[in-house]
Amino acid sequence: MNWLTNKINQPDPDYYTKALSRQAQLTKPSGSLGLLEEIAIRLAAMQGTERPAVNRVWVSVFAADHGVAEESVSAFPQAVTAQMVKNFVKAGAAINVLSRFVNADFEVIDVGLIKAVDASTVISERVGNGTANFAKEAAMTEVQMHAALTVGKSAVKRALKQETQLFIAGEMGIANTTSASALAVALTGLSAEQLTGAGTGVTHESTKHKTKLIKNAISLHQPLLETPLKVLQYLGGFEISALVGAYIYAAQQGLPVLIDGFIASVAALLAVKINPEIQTWFFYAHCSQEKGHRLILKHLQARPLLDLNMRLGEGSGAVAAVPLLQMACKLHNEMATFEQAEITTK
Amino acid sequence: MNWLTNKINQPDPDYYTKALSRQAQLTKPSGSLGLLEEIAIRLAAMQGTERPAVNRVWVSVFAADHGVAEESVSAFPQAVTAQMVKNFVKAGAAINVLSRFVNADFEVIDVGLIKAVDASTVISERVGNGTANFAKEAAMTEVQMHAALTVGKSAVKRALKQETQLFIAGEMGIANTTSASALAVALTGLSAEQLTGAGTGVTHESTKHKTKLIKNAISLHQPLLETPLKVLQYLGGFEISALVGAYIYAAQQGLPVLIDGFIASVAALLAVKINPEIQTWFFYAHCSQEKGHRLILKHLQARPLLDLNMRLGEGSGAVAAVPLLQMACKLHNEMATFEQAEITTK
Repeated sequence: MNWLTNKINQPDPDYYTKALSRQAQLTKPSGSLGLLEEIAIRLAAMQGTERPAVNRVWVSVFAADHGVAEESVSAFPQAVTAQMVKNFVKAGAAINVLSRFVNADFEVIDVGLIKAVDASTVISERVGNGTANFAKEAAMTEVQMHAALTVGKSAVKRALKQETQLFIAGEMGIANTTSASALAVALTGLSAEQLTGAGTGVTHESTKHKTKLIKNAISLHQPLLETPLKVLQYLGGFEISALVGAYIYAAQQGLPVLIDGFIASVAALLAVKINPEIQTWFFYAHCSQEKGHRLILKHLQARPLLDLNMRLGEGSGAVAAVPLLQMACKLHNEMATFEQAEITTK
Repeated sequence: MNWLTNKINQPDPDYYTKALSRQAQLTKPSGSLGLLEEIAIRLAAMQGTERPAVNRVWVSVFAADHGVAEESVSAFPQAVTAQMVKNFVKAGAAINVLSRFVNADFEVIDVGLIKAVDASTVISERVGNGTANFAKEAAMTEVQMHAALTVGKSAVKRALKQETQLFIAGEMGIANTTSASALAVALTGLSAEQLTGAGTGVTHESTKHKTKLIKNAISLHQPLLETPLKVLQYLGGFEISALVGAYIYAAQQGLPVLIDGFIASVAALLAVKINPEIQTWFFYAHCSQEKGHRLILKHLQARPLLDLNMRLGEGSGAVAAVPLLQMACKLHNEMATFEQAEITTK
């Protein structure tokens, strides 16, 4: 169980300095590539190289069901979790199209759907038949939660075997914005009103219902929410636990992580609360339209790369940002220096 | 001369409606791809097709020198314009690296450097040896301005011959943010203080000098700045005129345009003031770090796709946004519908 708090190696400061110095020599006003410079410099330090690259990208989508779905908190019925898993298998979802576009390795993991789907390409690492309804009881047992954290770790192990250079985790689970908002409230102390949004698109009335449910659930479990892991166990989900485990293990292995939207950012926040040293390994892909996301990013002191009003999940916003990381590396590696181009500097 | 105000055909409303309807059937919560949905829908209407695509991208970089460079308004000496043109030819600049990444056709046009560079791959359409210093006199003659506008039109003609699906214009010209800020002040009525920034990176002191110079120049020419074309002639540059001409002609030919940073946005503003119907053909790639850019975008009621603190010009911010347009098209064309994926909708 102790692997979660294992020591993290920080990105290499020497390669950071070298990359910073190279950026100053490239044929452009200093700093004029903005965040693209910062990305390249950070990646050089993370990868311990003078020529960073993001050619091999890995996408793991973790799917699970949520007991709280019975409280009518989603615009879609619970059956849609499994139906979307089948859609991932048939490569018809947004995350499939985007993963193909960036030539990413793609896999789907069943961490605990209500009922397993009949598809050989789904990786089955089920830790239960959906979580319990956190409005009434703890979402998971401690054993289930640790099993789900390990599911994330296993995905990173598969990614590392393929020598991936960037890890992305996506999630699918009807009602999981309700779980993520509850986690966010418990972790940040911000209000349920501030952190509860429309998810897949519920009405204003339903958002109010969702908000009230979250407030009540937190009151119910409050005395037991003493640590980030307890918060995860009582209010989280199997797929969210898998994301947390994946993020922590990726950082421990020195694998850069690109964080997706609201749910992924809440998982990142949990991961950082469990092991604060890991955050240097994270890039934040985008700010989604989901209400609480901007506040969570602010809490993480994260500057996202995109802000496109997306709110789909699945890892879609993260994969949409991959070309920016790739371009940042190409610019760093391929631009001429002032000396090479014989350009006058003052 | 009258081509500038020729009638524009608007994007096809039938294909707009069809694309909107298809987006609602794709396997995602309605609207959850945010601006990526809007991009695909607009492109479908522009291209008059059910399956929009941005596979063939065209980048024309227009370079010219500015008489106002003698007023010490740039962090780089004027010689750098020609040196950077040589860097473009040798494919060492940021715009080269980015154009290669998106597989764009790339060309450089000398619209009026102080002295032509010795490179056969530079398209020579020189309308003068740099502009006059607008702090003292009109930057261009009327004849020069119209010639430069036509240089932009010619670039679009070359792009159309290659059946390009997206047109990008970049610019290079030491001191051209000074010209762009002056144009912006004259066109919007906002103050020189609001619209004058650090350009390639001058000091705070130099920015104040630049601001004062712009105020004085506008006072000097004020009585003659009666039309957008007069504003362009007195305060603009050869390469900025070429951008204006390119944007107007692209829209007239129904070719989607992706606008780059501050200088390109000021050229877009000029183009829209000259022919207001063209703006439906524009996408705005990014908000740069250059001080006045956000205000110009607001004035154009434009929502940029990226906000990465870039401030390089050359068309670099526009090309950085190309993958977003490509992904938007792929998602629109390749995602499964709810019916195909047998997913329950309420």
